[in-house]
Amino acid sequence: MNDTKDNELIHKAELAHEASQVIAAKSTEEKNSALNQIADSLRAHAAEIIAANQQDMLRAQQKGMTDSLLDRLMLNKERIFAMANALEHLANLADPIGDELENWDRPNGLTIKKIRVPIGVIGMVYEARPNVTVDAAGLCLKTGNAVYLRGSASALDTNKAIVAVIRAALNTLEFPADSVQLLEDTSHETAGQFFRLNGLIDVLIPRGSSRLIQTVIKQASIPVLETGAGNCHVFIDETAKPEMAISIVLNAKTQRPSVCNTIETVIIHQKWFDQFGSALLDALQKEHVSCRIDPIIAGQFPDLKVATEEDWATEYLDKIIAVKIVSDLDEAIRHINKYGTKHSESIVTENAEHVATFFKFVDASTLYHNASTRFTDGEEFGFGAEIGISTQKLHARGPMGLNALTSIKYLIEGNGQIRH
Amino acid sequence: MNDTKDNELIHKAELAHEASQVIAAKSTEEKNSALNQIADSLRAHAAEIIAANQQDMLRAQQKGMTDSLLDRLMLNKERIFAMANALEHLANLADPIGDELENWDRPNGLTIKKIRVPIGVIGMVYEARPNVTVDAAGLCLKTGNAVYLRGSASALDTNKAIVAVIRAALNTLEFPADSVQLLEDTSHETAGQFFRLNGLIDVLIPRGSSRLIQTVIKQASIPVLETGAGNCHVFIDETAKPEMAISIVLNAKTQRPSVCNTIETVIIHQKWFDQFGSALLDALQKEHVSCRIDPIIAGQFPDLKVATEEDWATEYLDKIIAVKIVSDLDEAIRHINKYGTKHSESIVTENAEHVATFFKFVDASTLYHNASTRFTDGEEFGFGAEIGISTQKLHARGPMGLNALTSIKYLIEGNGQIRH
Repeated sequence: MNDTKDNELIHKAELAHEASQVIAAKSTEEKNSALNQIADSLRAHAAEIIAANQQDMLRAQQKGMTDSLLDRLMLNKERIFAMANALEHLANLADPIGDELENWDRPNGLTIKKIRVPIGVIGMVYEARPNVTVDAAGLCLKTGNAVYLRGSASALDTNKAIVAVIRAALNTLEFPADSVQLLEDTSHETAGQFFRLNGLIDVLIPRGSSRLIQTVIKQASIPVLETGAGNCHVFIDETAKPEMAISIVLNAKTQRPSVCNTIETVIIHQKWFDQFGSALLDALQKEHVSCRIDPIIAGQFPDLKVATEEDWATEYLDKIIAVKIVSDLDEAIRHINKYGTKHSESIVTENAEHVATFFKFVDASTLYHNASTRFTDGEEFGFGAEIGISTQKLHARGPMGLNALTSIKYLIEGNGQIRH
Repeated sequence: MNDTKDNELIHKAELAHEASQVIAAKSTEEKNSALNQIADSLRAHAAEIIAANQQDMLRAQQKGMTDSLLDRLMLNKERIFAMANALEHLANLADPIGDELENWDRPNGLTIKKIRVPIGVIGMVYEARPNVTVDAAGLCLKTGNAVYLRGSASALDTNKAIVAVIRAALNTLEFPADSVQLLEDTSHETAGQFFRLNGLIDVLIPRGSSRLIQTVIKQASIPVLETGAGNCHVFIDETAKPEMAISIVLNAKTQRPSVCNTIETVIIHQKWFDQFGSALLDALQKEHVSCRIDPIIAGQFPDLKVATEEDWATEYLDKIIAVKIVSDLDEAIRHINKYGTKHSESIVTENAEHVATFFKFVDASTLYHNASTRFTDGEEFGFGAEIGISTQKLHARGPMGLNALTSIKYLIEGNGQIRH
């Protein structure tokens, strides 16, 4: 590592840290003006951003990047305008900062108030999609946080252009441009140091592949908000209504197979399967979903692939589903708690006692009765914005809205109290 | 590392993980019975625990451990009974598990409930004090969590005896004894592996010296609840009532100098100091507090030591105080935000506008107006029990009660909803 690199990493972190103390106290109006100003500027400077993006695209094509990755990287006017619109939507949401969460009096006369405050500096670590640059900056500014962005090397020119536009927009207001920083040194070595800037960065949010997220978790000494992996299940109980069960499984598997709240295994009560199993498998195959079936029903369906131990643990993120047969609710719960990633789990049943047991014993952020797992999502929860879906149990679990980017502070009023 | 060590580390983590799924669903009554049963057993087996403790004490004396550390390690009947009483107190507190925190309906007919659940397996990392063994086990069981204890080598015999009593007590009830595990391999190498058991341990809580806490933060890939360091301040503003200000500073410095919510620096408005500074310094010296004063008043007090840059950043945890003179509120706030550890900060003033500014711009878990910083404490907040005082901004900040040992779960009821 040379001095310049070192200087960039630390220097920008210090600037972000300092700016965070200023923007923490900005009013809702000031923050919303900043978001709207950035939206306008992005539209006005779309051509410059697209020109920078073309540099990234050219390099990516020369390196032989796949079409789907190229599509993630590519920006056009439509996509830039969509990013701007998202910022305006964010400006219209309620500001959580300053909310009083609790207040109480103590026998000694002290009054205690608990209020929401920004976290400070958010370190955002992400891959090729340049829309995350705008999205992350918007979410952080809305909640009074500074953001230190570490995007991928392949999107560097695009990210530099976007951040330049954002900072210029902030400069036209009385809003510290230093609250948005981009790390231009995209080496892995410097990333490793970025993850350990305790005292300057307060939390890391990795967004992207499970490999990226695991790298951050392993290397970081800063607290990480873990998002990502979803090995989700629908359990069809003995009493499940056949039409409803089939409709929920199809939706949870096929509506958008590449996302984390999609199911990977359907668990079916043996008795339900005996009556309606063939209809379900037919419906799945009609939707081009390939089934990997439990060995105990392999004899009945010689054309279908048999599931292995590995299948139960796999997040296919594709039109593939594993089919597990169980003899009772307990076996279903044990299977989910063994192989699931504690994300989203659904039971389809008409038995209220089974719902209560499922809700009590399945360990996951979001549990459903008679609904698709696809609703585990900030928008679907009514949060207005989504930072991601937390798969950890600290700070935030499940879909994260703006509140996940906040901390708290206790304000205590006295009249001379001392402790005895 | 040999196989046996490896087996112990992982095997006990797996047992704790499995037990956590069972105790998560235990009723409040069952958990309280377990706490009361453990309390009874500790009293009944006090002699065995004391015998084991004497082995630790003997080894510690042979190694030349200091008297104050020996005192921390030492158990007698009185201390064991105090630990038992604390468990019974815990049994009497409200159980947060199952609490409904929010509920709302969505336009598509889904109803969403957010409830409190246990975290899972808590990894407790601590030093010589064997009372932490009982305390941690009690707090975790009360909140339906399993606990994996990693105490110090010097207290190993004591900890083994205590954990044996706890597990035997649980065995007499229908309560999985495996929910309390003690890592008997106390090597640093194994500790390093302990801190990285993601998937088996959900959170690490280090309790002890700042060195211990920083080691855990640096080495862990599991989320850590950071507690500890407190470089706290009282700011005496121009309009502060002299008697109140002096009483608060004395209390915040001398009532218990070795703890984190004690102040290290008093910041004084120049104009207040001109009138009442000598009285404050006299009062401090009368309480045997040695003062390290701001260079700008050094000429007036030639007998007092002059503070250096290092003093502003030092947590003395002793009867020493640094005295900083400022010309206005802003300078005081800048000093606190530069040198403080975001723990507890107090302003003594009669100026309401200054209180508002202080509350808005000082970045700390707990801010006081006209009160001692010594109130930053779970008991003083009315939480009934204290896990520690969080100095981080994620999950929990400030004094942590039982709620800090909980996570949440969303329970969603539908009637066949699928996503479009």
